[in-house]
Amino acid sequence: MSKDLGVCYYPEHWPEDMWAKDAADMVAAGIKWVRIGEFAWSRMEAVPGKLTLEWLDRAIDVLGGAGLKVILGTPTATPPRWMIDKHPDMLAVDESGNPRKFGSRRHYCFSHDGYREESARITRIVAERYGRNRHIAAWQTDNEYGCHDTIISYSEPAKIAFQKWCRDKYGTIHTLNEAWGNIFWSMEYFSFEDIDLPNLTVTEPNPSHVLAFRRFSSDQVVRFNKVQADILRENTDMPLIHNYMGRILEFDHFDVGADLDIASWDSYPIGFLSDRLEASDDHKARFLRQGDPDMQAFHHDLYRAVGKGRWWVMEQQPGPVNWAPFNPAPLPGMVALWSLEAFAHGAEVVSYFRWRQAPMAQEMMHAGLQTPDGREAPGMAEARQVADIVKAFDDVESSQSPVAIVFDYASDWAWHTQPQGAGFDYFRLTFATYRALRRAGLSVDIVNSDCRDFAGYRAVFAPGLATLEPSLVEAIDDAGAIGVLGPRTGAITTEFRIPEGGRPGVPGLDARVELIESLPPHAGMAVVGGGTVDHWCERLSGSAKPLLSLENGALVLMAERNRWYLGGFPDETLFDRIVGLVSEAGEFETHPMPEGLRRRMLGDLEFLINYDAGDVTHDGQRIPACGVVVRKDGQVLAESNMN
Amino acid sequence: MSKDLGVCYYPEHWPEDMWAKDAADMVAAGIKWVRIGEFAWSRMEAVPGKLTLEWLDRAIDVLGGAGLKVILGTPTATPPRWMIDKHPDMLAVDESGNPRKFGSRRHYCFSHDGYREESARITRIVAERYGRNRHIAAWQTDNEYGCHDTIISYSEPAKIAFQKWCRDKYGTIHTLNEAWGNIFWSMEYFSFEDIDLPNLTVTEPNPSHVLAFRRFSSDQVVRFNKVQADILRENTDMPLIHNYMGRILEFDHFDVGADLDIASWDSYPIGFLSDRLEASDDHKARFLRQGDPDMQAFHHDLYRAVGKGRWWVMEQQPGPVNWAPFNPAPLPGMVALWSLEAFAHGAEVVSYFRWRQAPMAQEMMHAGLQTPDGREAPGMAEARQVADIVKAFDDVESSQSPVAIVFDYASDWAWHTQPQGAGFDYFRLTFATYRALRRAGLSVDIVNSDCRDFAGYRAVFAPGLATLEPSLVEAIDDAGAIGVLGPRTGAITTEFRIPEGGRPGVPGLDARVELIESLPPHAGMAVVGGGTVDHWCERLSGSAKPLLSLENGALVLMAERNRWYLGGFPDETLFDRIVGLVSEAGEFETHPMPEGLRRRMLGDLEFLINYDAGDVTHDGQRIPACGVVVRKDGQVLAESNMN
Amino acid sequence: MSKDLGVCYYPEHWPEDMWAKDAADMVAAGIKWVRIGEFAWSRMEAVPGKLTLEWLDRAIDVLGGAGLKVILGTPTATPPRWMIDKHPDMLAVDESGNPRKFGSRRHYCFSHDGYREESARITRIVAERYGRNRHIAAWQTDNEYGCHDTIISYSEPAKIAFQKWCRDKYGTIHTLNEAWGNIFWSMEYFSFEDIDLPNLTVTEPNPSHVLAFRRFSSDQVVRFNKVQADILRENTDMPLIHNYMGRILEFDHFDVGADLDIASWDSYPIGFLSDRLEASDDHKARFLRQGDPDMQAFHHDLYRAVGKGRWWVMEQQPGPVNWAPFNPAPLPGMVALWSLEAFAHGAEVVSYFRWRQAPMAQEMMHAGLQTPDGREAPGMAEARQVADIVKAFDDVESSQSPVAIVFDYASDWAWHTQPQGAGFDYFRLTFATYRALRRAGLSVDIVNSDCRDFAGYRAVFAPGLATLEPSLVEAIDDAGAIGVLGPRTGAITTEFRIPEGGRPGVPGLDARVELIESLPPHAGMAVVGGGTVDHWCERLSGSAKPLLSLENGALVLMAERNRWYLGGFPDETLFDRIVGLVSEAGEFETHPMPEGLRRRMLGDLEFLINYDAGDVTHDGQRIPACGVVVRKDGQVLAESNMN
Repeated sequence: MSKDLGVCYYPEHWPEDMWAKDAADMVAAGIKWVRIGEFAWSRMEAVPGKLTLEWLDRAIDVLGGAGLKVILGTPTATPPRWMIDKHPDMLAVDESGNPRKFGSRRHYCFSHDGYREESARITRIVAERYGRNRHIAAWQTDNEYGCHDTIISYSEPAKIAFQKWCRDKYGTIHTLNEAWGNIFWSMEYFSFEDIDLPNLTVTEPNPSHVLAFRRFSSDQVVRFNKVQADILRENTDMPLIHNYMGRILEFDHFDVGADLDIASWDSYPIGFLSDRLEASDDHKARFLRQGDPDMQAFHHDLYRAVGKGRWWVMEQQPGPVNWAPFNPAPLPGMVALWSLEAFAHGAEVVSYFRWRQAPMAQEMMHAGLQTPDGREAPGMAEARQVADIVKAFDDVESSQSPVAIVFDYASDWAWHTQPQGAGFDYFRLTFATYRALRRAGLSVDIVNSDCRDFAGYRAVFAPGLATLEPSLVEAIDDAGAIGVLGPRTGAITTEFRIPEGGRPGVPGLDARVELIESLPPHAGMAVVGGGTVDHWCERLSGSAKPLLSLENGALVLMAERNRWYLGGFPDETLFDRIVGLVSEAGEFETHPMPEGLRRRMLGDLEFLINYDAGDVTHDGQRIPACGVVVRKDGQVLAESNMN
Repeated sequence: MSKDLGVCYYPEHWPEDMWAKDAADMVAAGIKWVRIGEFAWSRMEAVPGKLTLEWLDRAIDVLGGAGLKVILGTPTATPPRWMIDKHPDMLAVDESGNPRKFGSRRHYCFSHDGYREESARITRIVAERYGRNRHIAAWQTDNEYGCHDTIISYSEPAKIAFQKWCRDKYGTIHTLNEAWGNIFWSMEYFSFEDIDLPNLTVTEPNPSHVLAFRRFSSDQVVRFNKVQADILRENTDMPLIHNYMGRILEFDHFDVGADLDIASWDSYPIGFLSDRLEASDDHKARFLRQGDPDMQAFHHDLYRAVGKGRWWVMEQQPGPVNWAPFNPAPLPGMVALWSLEAFAHGAEVVSYFRWRQAPMAQEMMHAGLQTPDGREAPGMAEARQVADIVKAFDDVESSQSPVAIVFDYASDWAWHTQPQGAGFDYFRLTFATYRALRRAGLSVDIVNSDCRDFAGYRAVFAPGLATLEPSLVEAIDDAGAIGVLGPRTGAITTEFRIPEGGRPGVPGLDARVELIESLPPHAGMAVVGGGTVDHWCERLSGSAKPLLSLENGALVLMAERNRWYLGGFPDETLFDRIVGLVSEAGEFETHPMPEGLRRRMLGDLEFLINYDAGDVTHDGQRIPACGVVVRKDGQVLAESNMN
Repeated sequence: MSKDLGVCYYPEHWPEDMWAKDAADMVAAGIKWVRIGEFAWSRMEAVPGKLTLEWLDRAIDVLGGAGLKVILGTPTATPPRWMIDKHPDMLAVDESGNPRKFGSRRHYCFSHDGYREESARITRIVAERYGRNRHIAAWQTDNEYGCHDTIISYSEPAKIAFQKWCRDKYGTIHTLNEAWGNIFWSMEYFSFEDIDLPNLTVTEPNPSHVLAFRRFSSDQVVRFNKVQADILRENTDMPLIHNYMGRILEFDHFDVGADLDIASWDSYPIGFLSDRLEASDDHKARFLRQGDPDMQAFHHDLYRAVGKGRWWVMEQQPGPVNWAPFNPAPLPGMVALWSLEAFAHGAEVVSYFRWRQAPMAQEMMHAGLQTPDGREAPGMAEARQVADIVKAFDDVESSQSPVAIVFDYASDWAWHTQPQGAGFDYFRLTFATYRALRRAGLSVDIVNSDCRDFAGYRAVFAPGLATLEPSLVEAIDDAGAIGVLGPRTGAITTEFRIPEGGRPGVPGLDARVELIESLPPHAGMAVVGGGTVDHWCERLSGSAKPLLSLENGALVLMAERNRWYLGGFPDETLFDRIVGLVSEAGEFETHPMPEGLRRRMLGDLEFLINYDAGDVTHDGQRIPACGVVVRKDGQVLAESNMN
């Protein structure tokens, strides 16, 4: 598998006579792939049923003819205005009961049958027309499921579909009442038609109700995507892809990914730092123009798992963007760094968004590789450098990491349903685990919670797993890996109840949770030897071996052979100590990193990635500010440097 | 009157074969009372009109047979799902116009006639069936009026009822227009049908309109409760109780209390500290696992007045709860401390919520005396200790305190309607007064604003009384007590107008308010000799004796014999000085307390209550961390200590 | 033109037998003008069609008979309750889709045809009755357009009117689609009926759509006002006035002003400081009881332009008000200072709001010149002092200032539509420019963006002008003035697109914007020699002369002869340096001022205005705390001093 660059292009935004030069310029810049079509429905079918695809035929011909491989998107993220007249109830409805109107994008409810049929219809039309087109080398379904908070809808069609989902799952309303514990506040239903969506209740609704609705909402996305995937499969042999996003957790990406061939995601490091990451003001200031040093890597590793090993960056930020509260410009070198880091994590393609900055509409302040008037923007030179550098390791593929983290979307749904403490968040906890492993210089794999093959791992972390199946623990143990469970692991059943007989805890490990407290900011509890437990603190008892304890005597970390339990949310210091203990016990090496420097192994290549605005020297190697050094056996193989 | 423990229990949540053991375990723990039934309507009447109460008969038999006295709740806080089909417009409507839907609890509008009839019907059914049952020793109406902000409803039935309320009160629309000053912005009505509820107006509505609506909303609760009370009275001789909450001010508890026999409240010290109390971050950190040292005491004293001397804690937090933004665990000893403090303030019963932690639904993270799997939770041992300690003073009753505070719900409504400064809040001011008296080691009585018998008091504080009746001042003076009025006292009429001829001021005291300013944070005005005036500052003039003044020369405190007026909102230092001046003038002793330590006299017993996490020695007496020492004539009679 | 005092009076609020004494007291206080009628519709026409104006006849007679000149307001800001029955859809609708109900004021949508006809009808009635009345010396249309966020309405009538506005402007839907770039996300419309208002979209709507809606919304106000103005013109020769407000930018005041004779505004310095001004906590604390030293002056200068030279203060704060989050009292002297400052900027009339504090309704805590019971409030003595002082310079008129600022409402709409950085705001930027000029002791003129005559100016600042017409730059240059453009100048077309060929930049100045970044707080970029660029930073290139640059080497200020471009948002230090450079190059004098002291030339008179709470000595002149000194040729002509 080679390592290619791509770009996102909108022929419908530009006069047709510009297409050929654009295509030639792309090729000259070292770009191999071009994504088109995903927002163009109103030009494909301006009037219901009247297709106008000739322009698209020509665009594909021009781009493909220039030697570019085309990724064609189904245009279902932006149904045309006439669709709303045809299906007035297709709009999603927000938590307050307001419809989410036409006028931007993603204006549909996943549960609307009529719109799903329209989506199938247009998919079939483009699939049949272009499925065997020699220039089309991949397909994208829809665009960024979940962007703009569009998974959860409180529409009437969603209500009807949820009632059906409940009927299919529970069979009788009595079974559902029992499962959810509806007797609690006389919340019992007498028929499935009684069930409303869990918004606008007087106080919080039953968490079992909410979790069921969250599962349903995820299932609706999977179903919507599968309809398109099935139609495409009938018409093409090219790989099917969806472009996911950062920290979107409202649907199970593993479930969507199961129906596709490649996972891709849209990577906007600078915006993500400011608007979707817990970090100190100092950290955010330090990495203002670089992005968080672990956020991209985490998603690279996550989507490598979602893609069953095959993954891309479908949209790579090439300069300042428009959508964050503040939009600083990347430091010189960062566009190259982000691109190379993606390849280091095994990406097959890194595709920039977008070729040329649009002179109009919502994203007119979003940089492209070209300025609106067609000059080169700063990102272009970096893209060219990347195209050059990757030749040095074009064929090296990603290999297994020494450690893994179990990632479970349903746990996020559960803990959002009932956080118990405002500081507790599943992603935050899992990402804190990931960061600690990266600070230790480790490459990390992320695995789905249904993984049962851990051969080759020395340690597996499964923080905050809402429901724990004993077979997971057994599988980790069987592989000879240390399994670090907790905190808040196995606390509920899949129906959001405390398991019969109380929390079962981790099988084969006598470490019981006696009491739980959630903590406000600045109320961390000191651990003997250094570090604190923040946000979430469990009081443990049992016969397992105590490894760490609070200064007040309470236990924090307990172990029985390879089965470990962590009873709180560690700060960085404590997390570093825990990783140290695990690496000692698991007998694998760590490589503590200075702040801002990260390390990733790709096969036998060592990537040293410097997110810092200054040069750093580590392990005898100087890595320039915002630069990447690739080493093999300690010798520099390649290097990026825009400074 | 003995001092008993109780517990809240939900037989409908547990298999029937567990009831007998539960009852026996309660008795063994020293528990005498058990509250049941208040959320069980869907099991009492699963189908409209079809009663299924046999399980409740058996539950009462089992509990009562074990020797427990049963408090039976009317189940009207949680109408079943079918009720919404029967009365689709019974839901309350929020300020934005959204219905507050089924799916949790308290999903009804107090103004809905149909639901009030349903409430009467089910009350009559249980009253007739159990009114003479020998095990039923008390009744609870509904549950926690006002919880989840459920007093104010902007529904259509509320609008119709409010129009009727206005017609009954004002007779003609002209009278109403005059009373409210509707000419101000051409807001005059031409008929009672013109009157809308005061939400969603372009800018703030007429405060007279809002205050009338607040009075109406309170009256609706009183009427709703009285319907139940009247039916219960016909059928039982046992005392009637409602369980109020902390800092719920949307209805006049004195008015509801007038129709009942005993006031009770639900005491959750740790959650209240974090989510409904103005305090510094330091204070909140210091008392994170104990609760505010005065918040419980204040409500004990308030509800002692509401209950005309008879009051309980119906729900006592027994461990961590689930509903605050952060939910830390009580320090060892605090459950006992809270319980003993309640008895020190004259409680007849302290009842824990709940017996066993529920394994499902909204409150599954709310601790009970037992864990979900039936083991003892930490609170149980403390409950047992309390049961033992109270024997030492079982018969001692609460006696009159040296000082009183006048508490007036309508003043809170008035000042919320028009705060004039975002830092001004009636409860905050009154509670600051209470805290100052407690820091001086004083026991305090709280009295309703219609109280006219102050015999025995040395001083009476009436801060922030929106409307001042001269007879109140006369009555305080007649009793020989110092009356400390102000700030913002007598500023408006009951119709929310400035009284004719301007603010009348306090009769017999020449201290006029010339000008008012409200102040942002950190703009306190320094007082000569120490302390500041914050939030609210009046410029006083007149011939009364100046007692304190600002450094800029403006007067702060003025007096004419026993009639005092305070022209601002004092900080703690200034409030301590004022209490000192009053105690000197009123010739009563104070006992300045260290932070965290509080003192309460119960008859001739002195309770020293240590909210601090460390031991403290005061007046030659060591009081353990989170402990209570009961002394008689300086000798220790009893002591709690879980450390 | 003399300099007069006025007052706002509500005869309908007071018994008729008080009117004569009130009028006599006004005259005795030196007041010449009295404004009445603007909220009295429900007394003019209590029943639809049945006029009851006799009381108003008598009020005008009494006031006019006492020698007062009457300003009569059309009462259309407060339609009576029956109007809502007649036109149920006349209410504006907020962004969430909720109607903004009756019960306060300004409860109408500017786009409702029926209400506009009612407004014309009542205007005609009062115009015909009083147009030639000898006591009526001026007219006010409606009251405070835009107060309470009432310009933008998402009602159905607004939607229909907007569709018509679009049809009138664009002719065909294809033209509109092209103009707005609707292809971007398949947002194309197929007919004008497809166009919805840009609220409640899934994510942000097309900025071209929003900007068009903002232009439309402004036009609706202009049209509404013009209907009244035209009717009044037919019936009176007296000047027509509207009373604008502070920092209301939702409609183009120049457009409304074009149809009227005099601009006036309502000046509430203390409330504006707290609730509508970006400033540090220290600054807000320092001027807590005085208001910002530049905020009033800015609006004086703005409305002098809007009034084409003729302007008033229609409502002057005379003491504490009621509507800000916190409402401190003015320091002694401030009422006089504010009044004199207005005259220094050329006001013809300063009118206090209100004569007597109302004892009821929304503004009962708003001070008047009298207390509710008819005693003199603190403001009265200061008004009297002002009446006395202005005699000294009654005939001096405002003359041209050395510098001007271009103010453009449409730029505010544009940058609110797409701020790109949360710290960027057009008013904030323009006001920061104004402040810098005032710190340099300069008098400033504000001019509309269509101004093309700059004769007499040494420098013209045009910050943040969204769309730049080359003729503006030429006109400034032609006048020999230095034109300081930027930042963010000429960035878009009037349709909110990036101009063809990219940003054109400033004609005749080779300073191109290569890249833009918006910055979070505390991320200012240091400038060589002092100061920082905050919020907004452009990367400039080109052959123009570099004047200032960042420490990282990027250019900040460039010039080519008289044409200057500023590429960022300067902090105070940097702005002072820029003003210094401009004054050097433009060869005009500056007079750096101490904090809190301001200077304004009125003809040949120099006003020194001390907003500080302490005395200050400057240029050999002592100016008392909160005082004003008027000098001629360096000699004191008059002085205010309440201390």
